This record gives sequence, structure tokens and C-alpha cells, in this order.
Amino acid sequence: MKTRAAVAFEAKKPLEIVELDLEGPKSGEVLVEIMATGICHTDAYTLDGLDSEGLFPSVLGHEGAGIVREIGAGVTSVAVGDHVIPLYTPECRQCKSCLSQKTNLCTAIRATQGKGLMPDGTTRFSYKGQPIFHYMGCSTFSNFTVLPEIALAKIRPDAPFDTSCYVGCGVTTGVGAVVHTAKVQPGDTVVVFGLGGIGLNVIQGARLAGAGMIVGVDINPDREEWGRRFGMTHFANPKDVGDIVQHIVALTDGGADYTFDATGNTTVMRQALEACHRGWGTSIVIGVAEAGKEISTRPFQLVTGRNWRGTAFGGARGRTDTPKIVDWYMDGKIEIDPMITHRLTLDEINKGFDLMHAGESIRSVVIY
Amino acid sequence: MKTRAAVAFEAKKPLEIVELDLEGPKSGEVLVEIMATGICHTDAYTLDGLDSEGLFPSVLGHEGAGIVREIGAGVTSVAVGDHVIPLYTPECRQCKSCLSQKTNLCTAIRATQGKGLMPDGTTRFSYKGQPIFHYMGCSTFSNFTVLPEIALAKIRPDAPFDTSCYVGCGVTTGVGAVVHTAKVQPGDTVVVFGLGGIGLNVIQGARLAGAGMIVGVDINPDREEWGRRFGMTHFANPKDVGDIVQHIVALTDGGADYTFDATGNTTVMRQALEACHRGWGTSIVIGVAEAGKEISTRPFQLVTGRNWRGTAFGGARGRTDTPKIVDWYMDGKIEIDPMITHRLTLDEINKGFDLMHAGESIRSVVIY
Repeated sequence: MKTRAAVAFEAKKPLEIVELDLEGPKSGEVLVEIMATGICHTDAYTLDGLDSEGLFPSVLGHEGAGIVREIGAGVTSVAVGDHVIPLYTPECRQCKSCLSQKTNLCTAIRATQGKGLMPDGTTRFSYKGQPIFHYMGCSTFSNFTVLPEIALAKIRPDAPFDTSCYVGCGVTTGVGAVVHTAKVQPGDTVVVFGLGGIGLNVIQGARLAGAGMIVGVDINPDREEWGRRFGMTHFANPKDVGDIVQHIVALTDGGADYTFDATGNTTVMRQALEACHRGWGTSIVIGVAEAGKEISTRPFQLVTGRNWRGTAFGGARGRTDTPKIVDWYMDGKIEIDPMITHRLTLDEINKGFDLMHAGESIRSVVIY
Repeated sequence: MKTRAAVAFEAKKPLEIVELDLEGPKSGEVLVEIMATGICHTDAYTLDGLDSEGLFPSVLGHEGAGIVREIGAGVTSVAVGDHVIPLYTPECRQCKSCLSQKTNLCTAIRATQGKGLMPDGTTRFSYKGQPIFHYMGCSTFSNFTVLPEIALAKIRPDAPFDTSCYVGCGVTTGVGAVVHTAKVQPGDTVVVFGLGGIGLNVIQGARLAGAGMIVGVDINPDREEWGRRFGMTHFANPKDVGDIVQHIVALTDGGADYTFDATGNTTVMRQALEACHRGWGTSIVIGVAEAGKEISTRPFQLVTGRNWRGTAFGGARGRTDTPKIVDWYMDGKIEIDPMITHRLTLDEINKGFDLMHAGESIRSVVIY
């Protein structure tokens, strides 16, 4: 079949909207009509050539929502017509990682996914006979895409596509970091470094979990209003408060129970650790750092009881937990609508990247 | 009263055995006759002038066992004749840290302890009228010493002093790191870097917890026999196996559930983290690093599910958990006797430091 798609033919060039050939689903695979997709910093990271493992030409996009249009042989967990969210972190429920019950980082299809291929080692996309790579196992910048069954979360049919697509990455990453990775408890003190989309979702995750003090940190004063919109109780601008670690430690009576880095800046990651309370404070790295950058601290910080952890996809098991986050949204426990600042057509997708780079969007969504 | 003591009059000089004046216990304090004390690397670290906060002249020693000889006003938790272990990590059960139930790092007397003083801001030791500082709140290199009540663990009276003194630091630090900090479960894979006294106690802690594979890592081949003696199932010498991280990851089918650094070397601390299993592996820093040294890694290590933590005094609550570790020793659940490689008189104490520096002892104990 044919599908309209925004193709990244090479790094550092705008996406091109073309018509691709798409092979139907093979055994264990599913054809999905993408109804909406967010544009995420990770897409830009790859498009800008910063990811040394980025593959071109490829169909980027990993934050979508859509409808199952065709299932391959043996597919049992989704049916034609089901509403689904593609999962860049699948959940096979069979591998060592899934069975450990200690991580969401399923390894069933990791090797092929990292090579831009379906689990059988081939690609479903092609352009004028040339294969086009998949991206993060999703490729939501195509109106139709093919995914393995284990990479689809079935969601309730009344959830709007143009907001629930954000659950495919940003919402789950931020809310899940609080709920699944940190397991914040009522009354806990939470500090979030970086009030972009992920940071705002950490804030509303902390609100959902009943956190006490919720402190947002950003060098952009305009973000204070955004943070308060989602439950932030205190704001700190490192440009105003001097030593941000000392400021946080004083503000929180000894340090935070949980801190989250949503900046990707390794200097901030260290500050986030050191702003944790002696004895039990836990800092969770969410942001993806520049290639080659390292985090460091004095081991004394750990020996005196601080914990340094990380999270990917918010610690959420793709098929099990993602649908629940959509439920929370539909039940009003979390908000998404005000975060979708721009709605675009596929033809306008490069504008979405420009808005993101300029810091003018929380989330831009392409609607097919 | 008078007490014989080994005094550190200045850094980088041998201890001097002299008779000190010792004031009796004030309110909330206890006079203890030390019956035996271990000589620990931390004492040497201070004596060698490596601790920038080290105070002189002082009575070092923090790994003792003894008998209560006199109690001050208001003391209720110990009585004359009780057998006790001095605690450099006290347990007041009243401070924010104790009440958090998340850490053993009681802060009740931290400020004065760090200044070499009793909680009232004075010292009980003096020599020819000159005050002598306390050390780590213990000063076990004195036949008699005074401690706050909250810094004494009451232990069973049938435990020998010359072995149970080791519970005052090394045994608890190693065994507790496994049992209290990591909470190792039966079948877990454990890797220990550094097979000195602490590392051997980590090994026997892992054995006690029912760990599956217990891997010891040391550049000294002689330590293999020591490790196997306490439950180590595999030995790896970085000088023989090439890249130690790759070696451990291969040996453990993807990485360890728990790794422990018992070297104090920041390069090894990084290896210990990176030898953990993706998704859930936890590395615990036990060793004290040289002043100014930092640990570092790529944040990717954390984002993909590894946890970096630390432990002090094995995460054990001094008064609550230390007596249980003595019980485990008396019940044969853990061993101490073979680790006490040298028994010395107080007059021979400097020989104990020499043995430790030469790597010829696991633990030297001074018996009064």
C-alpha cells in the first residue's frame, strides 16, 4: 500500500513529505493508521545528527496514537479497529527483563529496533524501491506504519488522538518517573530541574502522587507560570538564587526526598543529586545527555545516603501501564490538553521542529 | 580517673602510649572499660593525615567492645556491667533521620562528634592539663572511654570481646551493606570489588542472604583463598581477565544484581556500577575515597536502569541492629574468628598499623 510520510533522507535537513510504499504486516505484526503524533526532542536529536547511531533515510516519530487497520498472522492482543499507542519500549512479557518484574526495559526486539528494522530484520517502508529505516520501532511520522504486536498499547476508544498521543512518550516519561520509578509517596518533597514538557509532567505526576512541596527549577522565568499550572508549589531560578544546591537544601529543610533531572545537562544532574536529602534522597535522571558527556560527584554523596538512579519511558511497562495513564487523563487525574500548544498538518511538520528549537512550544502535535 | 591510651599527638607520627586523665560520665554519658579494639583503615587514614578534618591530639580507635563501669545521670538503656559496643553512628531514635526510618545516619550529635567533642562541647580526655580530642565519638584506643548513651549498643554477655569488637565497624559495614542497604535476596548475583576485611564481610553477608553467584574481584591472587573461605563462588583478577566489566557481565549473564565497592578507588567504583545488570542492577559504594576524588559515568548507565548508592556502617541502626549481628556471629550464621589474624597488646598497637599497611592482616585487634 501507499502512505504519506515525512522522511528524514539525511541528517540536518528538513523532513520531506513524500508517498512511501508500505508492506503489510507479517506474522506478529500490525498495520496502524496513525491519527496524531507529537514531535519530541528525541526526534530532533536524531534529525540534527547528534545521535551517532541515527540511521538515514528513515521515518522518524515515536509519540503517536492511531487505529489498528490490519493484523498479521498470530496476532491476538489487538484487533482491527482497536485504538492503540505505539511503544518504543515494547513489553513482550517473556524475556529476562520482563520476567524480572524489576524493569520496563524489554529486550525482546532491541537488537533489530536499534538497526531501524522490524524483528525479522527487514523494513516495511520503501521509496522508489529503496528501503527506508524504521525509527525507535514506531515511525509515527507516517500516516500508516507497521509495528510488532508487543509494541502496541491498546487504549480506550474515547480518548482523543491529538492529546493521548503525548502519552506515547512525554507524559509517560514524566508522570511515570514519579509514579513508577521513584514511587513518590504523599507528603514527599519533590524537586524538578527543567520545566519543559517532561518537567511539567513530572510536576503533575508529583501532584497526582500527593507530594508535599513541589519545587520547579528553570533559568527561564516564563516557565514559572507553566509549572504552577500543573501543581508546582515553589519556583527557583538559578540565575536569581545563587548556589542552587544550597538554595534547595535550605528551602526543603535538608534536601529533597526526590529530585528529577529533565534537562539532559550533566552539570544539572549533579546539582539534582546533591540537592537530595542526606540519608535517603533519590535523584532520578530522565534527560538524555549529549554524546560523550559524563556525570560525576564525590562518592561521599552516595556514602551519606543519596541514591542516583535513572528512568526510561517513566519506568512504565508499555502495554500494562500506558493504557492506565490514558485512563488517568480521561478521568481528570492528569492534564494533557493545555500542554498541546500547537496542532499542525503533516505538511507543517518542520515548523513543529522550529517551534521546539525556539522553546515556543510545550508540545506540537501533527494531526493526519 | 586515669586511663592508659594510645594517643595520636600529631599526624604521620606513631601513636604514643601514655596515661591520660579521664573525667567521669556527665548526664546521659557512660564510662566504658574497653576490653578489645580493632585497628581499622579509617584510623590509619586519619593518623596518616589524609583526612582534612582530622583533629590532633586525639585518641583514635572506633571499633571496640567493653563493659559499662559507670553511668551518668539519666542513663536508662545500659547499666553497670553491661557488655557494649561503642557506636560511631549513634541511634537517638528522636531526630529527623532516625524518625524517617529510611537511614541509619542519626544526626543527634553529629556536629560535636565531628569536632572531637562530647555533646556538651567539651572533652573528657586530657594529658598534663591539655585537652585531648575524642575520635568518631568512640576513642577505643583508650582502656577507658566515655560515650553518650545513644552511642552504645548493648550486646549479649557471652560474646568474646576480641572478636565481637570487629562488629563495631568492619563486620557490620560489610554484612550490613548486603543485608540492610542492598537487601540481597536468595539467588541474587553479587560481585564484590576488593577482598580486604570489608570485602570478606560483604561475601559472608551475601552467603547469609542466600545469594547465588558470589564473585570476588581483587588484584592480589592470595585473596582468592580468603574469599572462598567465606562463601565466594567465583574469583576474578583484573590483571588476568582483561576488561573486568566485560568479564563480569559475561560471567553473570548480563551483569550483577548487586555490586559492592570495597576498595575506595573511584575507578573501581565506576567499574562496579557498569558491571551491574541493565534494568535493575544496583552498585553500592562502601569504600572511602581519597579526598578530592570523584566518581563519574555516562548518565546512560543510570537511564538504562542501573542504581548507584552508598552505605555507611552497613546501613545498620547502631543500637537496634548491631546486637543482632553479634547474635548472628554467636549463632554461627557469620564468622569472625578467622578474620582476626593478629592479637596485640596496647604497647604493640603501632605494629598493627604496620601490618595493615603491608596488607598482612585482615584485622589486628588490641586486647587490653
